[in-house]
Amino acid sequence: MSDTLSAPMTGVETVLSALRETMGSQISTVASVREEHSHGEALDASCLPAAVVFVESTDDVSRVLSLCHEHRVPVVAFGAGTSIEGHVTPPAEGVSLDLSRMTKIVQFNPEDLDCRVQAGLTRQELNAHIRDSGLFFPVDPGGEATLGGMCATRASGTAAVKYGTMKENVLGMTVVLATGEVIRTGGRVRKSSTGYDLTSLFIGSEGTLGIITEIQLRLYGLPESIAAAICQFNTVDEAINTAVEMIQYGLPVARVEFLDEVQMAASIAFSHLDELKPLPTLLFEFSGGPASVREQVEATESIARDNGGLGFAWADTPEERTRLWKARHDAFWAARAIDHSALVISTDCIVPISCLGELIDGAREDIAASGLRAAMLGHVGDGNFHTLILTENSPKGRARLLELDRNIVGRALALGGSCSGEHGVGIGKLEFLEAEHGAGALSVMRALKQTMDPRGILNPGKLLPPGEAYKG
Amino acid sequence: MSDTLSAPMTGVETVLSALRETMGSQISTVASVREEHSHGEALDASCLPAAVVFVESTDDVSRVLSLCHEHRVPVVAFGAGTSIEGHVTPPAEGVSLDLSRMTKIVQFNPEDLDCRVQAGLTRQELNAHIRDSGLFFPVDPGGEATLGGMCATRASGTAAVKYGTMKENVLGMTVVLATGEVIRTGGRVRKSSTGYDLTSLFIGSEGTLGIITEIQLRLYGLPESIAAAICQFNTVDEAINTAVEMIQYGLPVARVEFLDEVQMAASIAFSHLDELKPLPTLLFEFSGGPASVREQVEATESIARDNGGLGFAWADTPEERTRLWKARHDAFWAARAIDHSALVISTDCIVPISCLGELIDGAREDIAASGLRAAMLGHVGDGNFHTLILTENSPKGRARLLELDRNIVGRALALGGSCSGEHGVGIGKLEFLEAEHGAGALSVMRALKQTMDPRGILNPGKLLPPGEAYKG
Repeated sequence: MSDTLSAPMTGVETVLSALRETMGSQISTVASVREEHSHGEALDASCLPAAVVFVESTDDVSRVLSLCHEHRVPVVAFGAGTSIEGHVTPPAEGVSLDLSRMTKIVQFNPEDLDCRVQAGLTRQELNAHIRDSGLFFPVDPGGEATLGGMCATRASGTAAVKYGTMKENVLGMTVVLATGEVIRTGGRVRKSSTGYDLTSLFIGSEGTLGIITEIQLRLYGLPESIAAAICQFNTVDEAINTAVEMIQYGLPVARVEFLDEVQMAASIAFSHLDELKPLPTLLFEFSGGPASVREQVEATESIARDNGGLGFAWADTPEERTRLWKARHDAFWAARAIDHSALVISTDCIVPISCLGELIDGAREDIAASGLRAAMLGHVGDGNFHTLILTENSPKGRARLLELDRNIVGRALALGGSCSGEHGVGIGKLEFLEAEHGAGALSVMRALKQTMDPRGILNPGKLLPPGEAYKG
Repeated sequence: MSDTLSAPMTGVETVLSALRETMGSQISTVASVREEHSHGEALDASCLPAAVVFVESTDDVSRVLSLCHEHRVPVVAFGAGTSIEGHVTPPAEGVSLDLSRMTKIVQFNPEDLDCRVQAGLTRQELNAHIRDSGLFFPVDPGGEATLGGMCATRASGTAAVKYGTMKENVLGMTVVLATGEVIRTGGRVRKSSTGYDLTSLFIGSEGTLGIITEIQLRLYGLPESIAAAICQFNTVDEAINTAVEMIQYGLPVARVEFLDEVQMAASIAFSHLDELKPLPTLLFEFSGGPASVREQVEATESIARDNGGLGFAWADTPEERTRLWKARHDAFWAARAIDHSALVISTDCIVPISCLGELIDGAREDIAASGLRAAMLGHVGDGNFHTLILTENSPKGRARLLELDRNIVGRALALGGSCSGEHGVGIGKLEFLEAEHGAGALSVMRALKQTMDPRGILNPGKLLPPGEAYKG
């Protein structure tokens, strides 16, 4: 062999070489860009992707997938990078497919209360764009996530108790399959009973079955009247019982959020909520016609009073309401600010609402026993809450943190719950999946994965732990 | 060969012979029983099943499927037999799996607003059983269908505009796969982002991917206050515009049903609604807190008045409300009674609500051009309506009826709609599926079917037209 002969190209080199001909300016192998695409907001940075491809259209995605399929190169979709379960971590020699330039509103149909957007648009961008129409998209996970990412993780957040999650608010999609083939799922209609529900199959599939490029979303009229309030309690149980009774009573509350005394102390410092005390707290939002809102408010005040609530403070102006909800949205950063050098993870357990008090009490015992600092907050109207656990940044600290996480998840599963209400599985929750779903359901999920992506190029190693696949 | 040697048993004979050992009394090969299980409420009776097996537990279903899988015998689930698209028609040499004895309420969790039921229970039976708790299950397709059948066809009906369809109201299931293996999907929690949404995959799968045996359902508090009313109009357009504007305005109406002048004439005669005129009509139901209901009613009256509504008649008592809604539920039988000797089919088109007026106008032109009698009614708050078409019972009549059906479906698909809002595909809508979903989406559906049921024993020939399956 001649010594001038270069080594054969690896799969990813072949793919990049082919892509450079038509998409050269959209490909980056710069170290800082690859580093940005190596992790979400989770614990660990992992290995860097071989390259980042900034796609601008469904055709671009199709071209990239077609080549990656041919050369068996892993592809990991990347939106805003807000995942906290390791979803966007690429394998070595993989391509990070960045959809953040796909921000078009493809259709806006105000008369049908729907729109079609590209997957890289964020909900904030969408809502800013359509505000003058009197409509909005309600699913609100807090962070500035892309709508594609929200679909891929079946996101929800503070408004799910009234409007549902992404599952209930996506009418259809454009999806690029592993081979590069483009399909449309669902449509514009409110309901249909024709064929398998492919839209729901891709929602929550975390980029492992196909890449979502366009989304048909339901929209809602901005409520005629909105009221927001805060109520503090002497004990966690009083706060949780208030939220549980509201749901059992059937109150159509728009949001009901819980923050424990640790979280409140952090949020008071971070968001300058000096009028409040570091006590267990509920934040409420009510919306609808003015009379309906008054009815909800009166019923809620009565339930809170019976449970020892220390009085309601009303956010009377839109500015005051925004300030309150911004503090809630910044809660993660407020808890983070307790100790900037600490490792932080967030649990995301959800249980039937009648078990919420028991789970939170148990989790607080676990926290006390662990000796770690932890703040609690959550979407208690759904039975979903987060424990933000802080620990020293060391292997030992990390082990203690994961042990506490496992204890709390174990309690949730024992109560018929789920290990993740809205953050997804990614890598972080893989170990709990069989305990939650059972071996049979997981074997069916694996069979679906093999069918849609037999070469295993789509976000490998995420969502499904290894094991047997169902054979019919 | 000896002439005393009997012919080898066919697959179904082998299966029945094995089942008789343990389930003998649950198997029927009586002609009248087989005839009852040969059709739903659709046009045609088809061939008889070889036998009917009355299963009483998930284990029974597993035993039957395991044997049928081994011997490649087709299995068609049967609930109440109310399908009108040919879902329950068995192939020759197939087994009809009757789940109507599986009527247990397995769990009732009023504090979490959920319950778990066996698939053969009807929603009426469930609601009668839990009425004293103040809770109810809202999805209401009209007929006395089983909850399993309602899952299998992704049913909805009059209350979907407020409460959603089966898709939004099932939290989890027990499903028996083609091999007889039993899995659980979903759970009791309100939301979860862990794993593929198997529950949604089985909802609407029409018995082609697995047999649903248990269902975890969401329940709701009975509304504090309910108001029902009727408003008549001089023209169809006025009635439809009223319904469309209510939805665009965001009114949280509980039901809004349209009946055209032909349907009204039939219903007046059938249900003794002598106070009403054969005019285009809307039926409304509002529910919630008393102040909220008053708000909805005032807004609706104003919209109807602006669109030429001829005044509201209120159903002030529960008895009067029941009478009104019973008349709506009996609309199919009222239209049927126009001519008992006629063939009847029902379209089930749905379109984005802004296109509903155009579709209904077009459908009325098609009806006039066809010379056939047809009554229209529907869940116009969702953009979904039915045309009950009557024709003489002859091959020529049948051909004219199907031509009219195709014309109306064609209009709906051209407007971005679906050929079936809630009746499912079965056999009746097979021909429209590719036009509605595209070849790509259908190829994925076929791949899923092959994965879940490679031997093709589960309700063969339904839901999916033949063609290529996606190969990743």
